[in-house]
Amino acid sequence: MKIGIVGLGLIGGTIAKSLNMNHFISGYDTSSESIAYALDNRIIHKAYENISDFWKDNEVVYLCIYPKSMMNFIFRNRDLMPVSSVIIEISGIKESLIKELEPVKSKNLDIIYTHPIAGSEKVGIYNSDENIFKNANYVITPIKSNNKNNLDLAANLAKEMGFSNISYINPSDHDKMIAYTSQLTHVLSLSLVNSISTNLDTSKFIGDSYRDLTRISMINEKLWPELFIANKDHLISKIENFENELKNIKEAISTNNIKKLEDIMIKSTSIRSSISKGDNDES
Amino acid sequence: MKIGIVGLGLIGGTIAKSLNMNHFISGYDTSSESIAYALDNRIIHKAYENISDFWKDNEVVYLCIYPKSMMNFIFRNRDLMPVSSVIIEISGIKESLIKELEPVKSKNLDIIYTHPIAGSEKVGIYNSDENIFKNANYVITPIKSNNKNNLDLAANLAKEMGFSNISYINPSDHDKMIAYTSQLTHVLSLSLVNSISTNLDTSKFIGDSYRDLTRISMINEKLWPELFIANKDHLISKIENFENELKNIKEAISTNNIKKLEDIMIKSTSIRSSISKGDNDES
Repeated sequence: MKIGIVGLGLIGGTIAKSLNMNHFISGYDTSSESIAYALDNRIIHKAYENISDFWKDNEVVYLCIYPKSMMNFIFRNRDLMPVSSVIIEISGIKESLIKELEPVKSKNLDIIYTHPIAGSEKVGIYNSDENIFKNANYVITPIKSNNKNNLDLAANLAKEMGFSNISYINPSDHDKMIAYTSQLTHVLSLSLVNSISTNLDTSKFIGDSYRDLTRISMINEKLWPELFIANKDHLISKIENFENELKNIKEAISTNNIKKLEDIMIKSTSIRSSISKGDNDES
Repeated sequence: MKIGIVGLGLIGGTIAKSLNMNHFISGYDTSSESIAYALDNRIIHKAYENISDFWKDNEVVYLCIYPKSMMNFIFRNRDLMPVSSVIIEISGIKESLIKELEPVKSKNLDIIYTHPIAGSEKVGIYNSDENIFKNANYVITPIKSNNKNNLDLAANLAKEMGFSNISYINPSDHDKMIAYTSQLTHVLSLSLVNSISTNLDTSKFIGDSYRDLTRISMINEKLWPELFIANKDHLISKIENFENELKNIKEAISTNNIKKLEDIMIKSTSIRSSISKGDNDES
């Protein structure tokens, strides 16, 4: 197939790398460095300077730009985007984005809203790596107007990219879930790192636990603030649930309540172990 | 050397595996299953049923039992432990433990207090694995009465086990540091997992971030409550620092403060990146 990618960053580049053996991949990006890198490293087969040709030539287009740029981008291109092409969107929030984009796009254009749950603390096409998709989760949030064939196409391409679980969920449940599994984890990692209060050389005293919990505190500050704010209500509610649990543990420690701490640990071990079972990527 | 290990659990077993090519390793444990497993799998060369022989025969003894059992154990064995042998203790807290053990042990016995910062969410000798020590940090907390040769011996054995950084710090700074780098991270992981509030199948929606932050919520509930409580004041203070940072982020999200969120993320990225540099194990 002829597959176009708008936005050759970490995810756009990784999609290209994951599909460029079996498909003709072209790219569009405002950064000439990213384009040059993608061509030089044979990540894409072709780059377009003229976006109207890009739209004409591609059957499937992945939109890999930041959510806040998306509405403007769709609005500016609405008359160029052929309704025969399938647009696949890949950002980390859904409900508010769908509300923004659906009224703006041309009426018969089919946008498939998806979320590849994979990434890296590194940014840019220079760090794109098809391994980050291997055995990861891919979520599709169908809306009523979506064409069944296009939904299937998005799922099949995700499988080709290496994702192992393709799931379907409504946009609102997606946002609720992701507020917990992804956004809250990032908030905690940031807070852990920023609460450091020592002049000692921490690196000599850390183990895997600290390394694992803080890796994602190296974060793309141009993307994540808008993701947090776009999903504000769900995220704040998850933070508050977390604060209650933390208060609970703090109280048990303060009162030397060994039994309560044991119960908390038995509960967490049981919940986390049951998640591992469904998690193909777990070793 | 003739090296004895009291307590053939995850760490005791891992010490044995890391040293059994170059030393004669013997073990003592109240669990006959652990002893049988250690002998059957050639993790140790010899097991003792009679503890007085165990003490007589070994030049170096690693104490790999839970901190709360330690004082009793030292008290019961004080007249059997030859003052010529070097005792190396390996638990995750120091100041309160040293205060307990030093008055109980026989006067000329030298206990070297150390902390191998490595572990696993799995327990028992069945999960011992010399790879968990590779390139990890090892901390020694010398006290005034320690013999310099014995401190060096503990450091050299740690290097033999595969640890890459051997650091020295006083017991109180150790406990302050570990309250942050290890105990707080475990508290956060527990709270994150226990704050789950959905009936949806989370495993389909998680990525590496959630996997990484929650792995250590599978935790040994017989060991960690006492570690938390033994280091209560430092740990509560670290939890409170964390709570302040979390409040900070929550407020920025509530007020749509993109600039503040960016600053928080730039700060965390910078702190965490500088830690990575000193961290040999980071890929």
